[in-house]
Amino acid sequence: MFSPLIDDLINALRCLPGVGPKSAQRMALHLLERDKPAAAKLAARLGEAVEKVGRCQKCRTLTEQTICNTCANPKRSSKQLCVVETPADVLAIEQAGNYDGKYFVLLGHLSPIDGIGPEDIGIDLLLERLQSEAVEELILATNPTVEGEATAHYLAAQAKGLNVSVSRIAHGVPLGGELEYIDGGTLAHAFNSRRSV
Amino acid sequence: MFSPLIDDLINALRCLPGVGPKSAQRMALHLLERDKPAAAKLAARLGEAVEKVGRCQKCRTLTEQTICNTCANPKRSSKQLCVVETPADVLAIEQAGNYDGKYFVLLGHLSPIDGIGPEDIGIDLLLERLQSEAVEELILATNPTVEGEATAHYLAAQAKGLNVSVSRIAHGVPLGGELEYIDGGTLAHAFNSRRSV
Repeated sequence: MFSPLIDDLINALRCLPGVGPKSAQRMALHLLERDKPAAAKLAARLGEAVEKVGRCQKCRTLTEQTICNTCANPKRSSKQLCVVETPADVLAIEQAGNYDGKYFVLLGHLSPIDGIGPEDIGIDLLLERLQSEAVEELILATNPTVEGEATAHYLAAQAKGLNVSVSRIAHGVPLGGELEYIDGGTLAHAFNSRRSV
Repeated sequence: MFSPLIDDLINALRCLPGVGPKSAQRMALHLLERDKPAAAKLAARLGEAVEKVGRCQKCRTLTEQTICNTCANPKRSSKQLCVVETPADVLAIEQAGNYDGKYFVLLGHLSPIDGIGPEDIGIDLLLERLQSEAVEELILATNPTVEGEATAHYLAAQAKGLNVSVSRIAHGVPLGGELEYIDGGTLAHAFNSRRSV
């Protein structure tokens, strides 16, 4: 359609999530017509990130350091360890702002159907860490999806023999939500997990 | 929030049209977590395109060649010259499939308020081409917006003395459209431009 280099760029842009052929074309033409400096910067940043960003050796989150800032921070307690699925979940919990323990990022969830077993999401590393460090509480904050729940159950079972108390974040009606619009599963869960006042 | 390289990448991704902070974060994490080969390819393609893609010396469209494929194609008639605003417009007309003349791409439109005058959109080059080549018909296919119409009027006035017939693409009710849902301006235009059957 366009010249080969532009067509190649449009195809390459389609690797971005949520970007189809029309958006990719719009992005490519926008960058080349109006914002070449920003495009050059993006190419450089992307190349550098692909080359240097790897996983933190302690918590498996994405970082260009050997040990990420959160793991290296001496002000954070090592007594609590929160297990999440992705680095974006770490950010969400940090923005909530009331947790000062450490994290372990699975970068995925158990999914036997896709061939993803415990080693693929670093559960061996997690169990090793539970044994070697003085972790008192393991907080399971995987997503409340089928795979996330299965991963949480598996982790709870594995941690049982290790003298660590295990907890799961609460599920129920979100603040500001209206009961009328909440799905039945969530509402049933909220009833079953009610607390005395 | 994340490590510096990842934050830089998220900021750089915001140069893409329609990408806000949340989408940029999602894109960066997706690329780094799941699709590093595609990300490396995108970085390479983008860098190459920024470096090599420039403008066709004849029609001003985006291309990495000196003269683009459409201009260099001897099978296309030089008697008709179609003026459009962007390379995407060329693609749209090519996909409609019934035009085999050549193009001239303004890469913008007249917009005195933004300081965009005739030289900025290559109108001097266009007029020179009308004089030096045997162009018989100049087809104005700028967008039916205020700026596009103003650009078309300006071009028509400029081309008047050059022995070239000037035409404007038709505006009216699109095929498959229902009158009930067409805006008043378009409908008035469709009435005023009615043709005898």
